[in-house]
Amino acid sequence: MTPASTGPATGPRKRGRPARTSAADGPAARDRILTAARNEFAEHGYDKTSIRGIAKAAGVDPALVHHYFGTKEQVFEAAVELILAPAMGAPDAVHGSREGVGERMARFVFGVWENPVYRLPLLAVLRSALTNEAAAAVLRGMIERRVLLRMAGELDVPNPEFRAQLAAGHLIGIAMLRYVIRMEPMASAGMDDIVAMVGPTLQRYLTES
Amino acid sequence: MTPASTGPATGPRKRGRPARTSAADGPAARDRILTAARNEFAEHGYDKTSIRGIAKAAGVDPALVHHYFGTKEQVFEAAVELILAPAMGAPDAVHGSREGVGERMARFVFGVWENPVYRLPLLAVLRSALTNEAAAAVLRGMIERRVLLRMAGELDVPNPEFRAQLAAGHLIGIAMLRYVIRMEPMASAGMDDIVAMVGPTLQRYLTES
Repeated sequence: MTPASTGPATGPRKRGRPARTSAADGPAARDRILTAARNEFAEHGYDKTSIRGIAKAAGVDPALVHHYFGTKEQVFEAAVELILAPAMGAPDAVHGSREGVGERMARFVFGVWENPVYRLPLLAVLRSALTNEAAAAVLRGMIERRVLLRMAGELDVPNPEFRAQLAAGHLIGIAMLRYVIRMEPMASAGMDDIVAMVGPTLQRYLTES
Repeated sequence: MTPASTGPATGPRKRGRPARTSAADGPAARDRILTAARNEFAEHGYDKTSIRGIAKAAGVDPALVHHYFGTKEQVFEAAVELILAPAMGAPDAVHGSREGVGERMARFVFGVWENPVYRLPLLAVLRSALTNEAAAAVLRGMIERRVLLRMAGELDVPNPEFRAQLAAGHLIGIAMLRYVIRMEPMASAGMDDIVAMVGPTLQRYLTES
């Protein structure tokens, strides 16, 4: 760190703490840790990712990872929040006019899945949930609180949480066939063809009593 | 091996090859290998299962595993065929009267998933497909050939394979929420409540032009 000096070229001498010139700590370091965590979990999955590996990728001490986030599970939760962020707009797609809500939800969710920048980390999280119980619990809690409960709150039907999960389940399953198992013709089908069939299904689940 | 002997107690002396009294080879050994393969893949997944581990569990030489089945991928394919066998009745559920076919398919597929004896190995295969490309290719090929193509053959709608995959996708997604991520209320919902909503969806996919 370079101490502040006097004179016109660099401004008056500052009192107190020297200026931070290396991001060994502070909000920039926290962001680097979170980004590294997201990338590590996305690439290696929950089991094969360690606090040490995340710290190394972020160029920080492992103690700093614990300091900002806590346990491995809590780091994972923060990374999942980042990874799921694009999907958290789903309740907003459901908000508003009942007319066409099925199609809106389908187009929104597939819009996220169609983008490999969002899809690949999402698949990694799903993969982690399938192979690790702690990861499954994190994913479950986050989808429940941040997506499904909010979506159910927008619905005017009996058992709105059940209805929201029927709709979400349908989209998850199509996504599994299209993007994970890559079964034809679903893998190459046009989005309009899928939405033409799935939209009315979601419409019924989300609006019909 | 005990050579055949003469006398009334054990019957006349047989010519040729001595009777097999230990199943070191032969159809019984092949069955033991297949059972061991199913159990190993179900318990450890594709990546962590080896020909050596399967051979050990079956009490045979690894060379015998190669002899009967071929490569690791081919052993996996045989094991998957065994694990998927309960599900291969789905096309038969679709066979017959168009009336109620949606409900028939839903009840059949959930009937398989509701049984932990069938479900746990199925989940293990799904997990393997998610984490290993070779395993995904095996699962894809088997579901396509043995289930979906046959089901599509029973349908009298345009794009019957697409329709069969819409239906299968829906069921797979609900199964993910109910049995894997274990999200409430879907995880504890009554089967009749699920079928009441999903049956009419499948009916439309499988019969409506």
